[in-house]
Amino acid sequence: PTTKLPKVGTTIFTVMSQMAAEHNAINLSQGFPDFDGPKKLLDSVGHYIAQGANQYAPMTGMPVLREEIARKVAALYGTTVSAETEITVTSGATEALFAAISAVVQQGDEVIVFDPAYDSYEPAIELNGGIAVHLQLQPPGFHIDWQHLKDAITARTRMIIINTPHNPTGSILSAQDLEQLAELVRDTDILLLGDEVYEHIVFDGQKHHSLLGHSELYQRSFVVSSFGKTYHTTGWKIGYCVAPAILSAELRKVHQYLTFSTSTPMQLALADIMRDEPSHYHDLPDFYQRKRDLFNTLIKPSKFSFTPGEGTYFQLVDYSAISDMSDVAFCQWLIKEVGVAAIPVSVFCQAPPDMKLVRFCFAKDDATLKQAAERLIAI
Amino acid sequence: PTTKLPKVGTTIFTVMSQMAAEHNAINLSQGFPDFDGPKKLLDSVGHYIAQGANQYAPMTGMPVLREEIARKVAALYGTTVSAETEITVTSGATEALFAAISAVVQQGDEVIVFDPAYDSYEPAIELNGGIAVHLQLQPPGFHIDWQHLKDAITARTRMIIINTPHNPTGSILSAQDLEQLAELVRDTDILLLGDEVYEHIVFDGQKHHSLLGHSELYQRSFVVSSFGKTYHTTGWKIGYCVAPAILSAELRKVHQYLTFSTSTPMQLALADIMRDEPSHYHDLPDFYQRKRDLFNTLIKPSKFSFTPGEGTYFQLVDYSAISDMSDVAFCQWLIKEVGVAAIPVSVFCQAPPDMKLVRFCFAKDDATLKQAAERLIAI
Ligand SMILES: CSCCC(=O)C(=O)O
Ligand SMILES: CSCCC(=O)C(=O)O
Repeated sequence: PTTKLPKVGTTIFTVMSQMAAEHNAINLSQGFPDFDGPKKLLDSVGHYIAQGANQYAPMTGMPVLREEIARKVAALYGTTVSAETEITVTSGATEALFAAISAVVQQGDEVIVFDPAYDSYEPAIELNGGIAVHLQLQPPGFHIDWQHLKDAITARTRMIIINTPHNPTGSILSAQDLEQLAELVRDTDILLLGDEVYEHIVFDGQKHHSLLGHSELYQRSFVVSSFGKTYHTTGWKIGYCVAPAILSAELRKVHQYLTFSTSTPMQLALADIMRDEPSHYHDLPDFYQRKRDLFNTLIKPSKFSFTPGEGTYFQLVDYSAISDMSDVAFCQWLIKEVGVAAIPVSVFCQAPPDMKLVRFCFAKDDATLKQAAERLIAI
Repeated sequence: PTTKLPKVGTTIFTVMSQMAAEHNAINLSQGFPDFDGPKKLLDSVGHYIAQGANQYAPMTGMPVLREEIARKVAALYGTTVSAETEITVTSGATEALFAAISAVVQQGDEVIVFDPAYDSYEPAIELNGGIAVHLQLQPPGFHIDWQHLKDAITARTRMIIINTPHNPTGSILSAQDLEQLAELVRDTDILLLGDEVYEHIVFDGQKHHSLLGHSELYQRSFVVSSFGKTYHTTGWKIGYCVAPAILSAELRKVHQYLTFSTSTPMQLALADIMRDEPSHYHDLPDFYQRKRDLFNTLIKPSKFSFTPGEGTYFQLVDYSAISDMSDVAFCQWLIKEVGVAAIPVSVFCQAPPDMKLVRFCFAKDDATLKQAAERLIAI
């Protein structure tokens, strides 16, 4: 019989991390830190394990963790959400995205995504019989063209996926953007999926404008975040989704059969750190801005050109002064010949525009960034 | 707009565990131990966390863990499987089941399940546009009627889900059963999904006959198991799927966008315990048989009647000498009036036969079982 998913290959993150390992390259491709989260958080998991917190968490997540999330949402975005009915803890943001899409997208539904788009959206849409409608974010700013979006909306538009801060470009939505969005979807049944896993990583004094902070938009939104990104623990695979009760109920119908629940002791440890050290996420913008600036300063003498990103772990760079290879070929060359791994941007686009861009992850120890930069400026 | 999943309610495990908590009942409903796994395993997670094993595991699972799984499969079932291409670590067996179904079931495909059937199969099938075809396992033995199965196979049959040891009835497949199955599917394209999460929990000197041990069947099988069940750590949510390379490749296409990967430090700790203490799973049959026998001896003076289960965490009991309530009503009554939670069996059946059966989980401390039994014999 035929393959169900002939178009799906191996995710670029696996391909590039594997190739980096094979060639012993510095891995600035897949987005994960090479340093650890707060010691208190790390220690705490073992503590809960020793205490016997090793059986199923409630399907919706540990109540203490959901309460801390509700508290954070209120503190940061001024929105009161119910820990009981509006928050669901998931096995990473990836599961939350998949569950939200699966909960509402049906055969023939259109879902609008903005290219470059994170690579899990389209397969999730297609597995549910939906159709991904791709709009382009235009370089250099990679901001949404609201007229394009307006033109793309049809009677079959079920959902729009909004990713802010945006992976891989680092662009962020403004308060005005959210107003534009609100105007466009008002009087429609269109749902929103907010991929906000980098909510705490926004630079230069700018502010993250969450769908959670816009009451009109929130009413139709699933908003996804990631403890992995916020606490430097991507390997724990814990994320969450906040959505109005009626949407959360639909999401949970899927979540309960997708993974049911996620790590009990890690959820408890995360609840403690959220409660005891809110300074952790308040300090993240500065922490990562310093990394961005360090990396950008270090590669300044190189032949790469770039505009500093507004948020996320990532810096896009243009390599057209170095090579006219495709970005995929350039990334392979970069691993093999230079010893640095990056992510090609075209793989996130249905119809890649003519651009020579790759993505570097600067969520790395300073020493790692220095070593990588040395290699990059030597090109 | 209409709800996508109007038929899906909250999983019975959540409903019953919540109700048990509200009424302070002894929870013999949801299947999880109330005791801990090996101390070495528990300690080891904190060790790996402290060492910095906190970033993404490879999408397919940590290589050391996949190698231990391959070793176990060879040792127990005599089958050589490749850690590289045939084993995928997942966020619990639940995710493995969902991913296997999603990887191959398409619009209009029929998937045969045996009732009482674990409650995640049908929603996963339906989310993928498939049709669950329900066959009944007949009490008291709850074994497969091979003629029924033969009659149910059509040109649209894409998959048969085989659950052995069987939840909730505890029945197990024999070597002869596997031969019958092989005969039925020979010369067809039908795939098999083996839910074998209780592979190590089989009683009375009987043997678990895994699809992994039958080379002809394995060629068309996804075989799912659970570290949670085997190591008393259901709250860690780590499972795996073994399948031939061609099927594993399809499963991974879905897994990478469902959850991508699962807890790095816990995978490392599990690899160590598998390598260092294979006696753990060799001792499980005796360990749980003693629990089954203790529970059954304790409730012998009660009005419940039962045949001892052949495997799993569970004992089915007939309550018809006590009440003619429906099993759902009986379970509610049992929680509220007796203080013991059980799982009604009818919720696992499309067309519940006329039976008055509930499921008790005996994966509990002896003291818990004694206290529950006291309440049950007082009815
Ligand atoms: C799930 S692996 C990908 C991690 C990530 O978010 C990225 O590199 O963009
Ligand atoms: C995922 S909660 C259900 C646990 C279980 O396997 C059972 O109780 O049957």
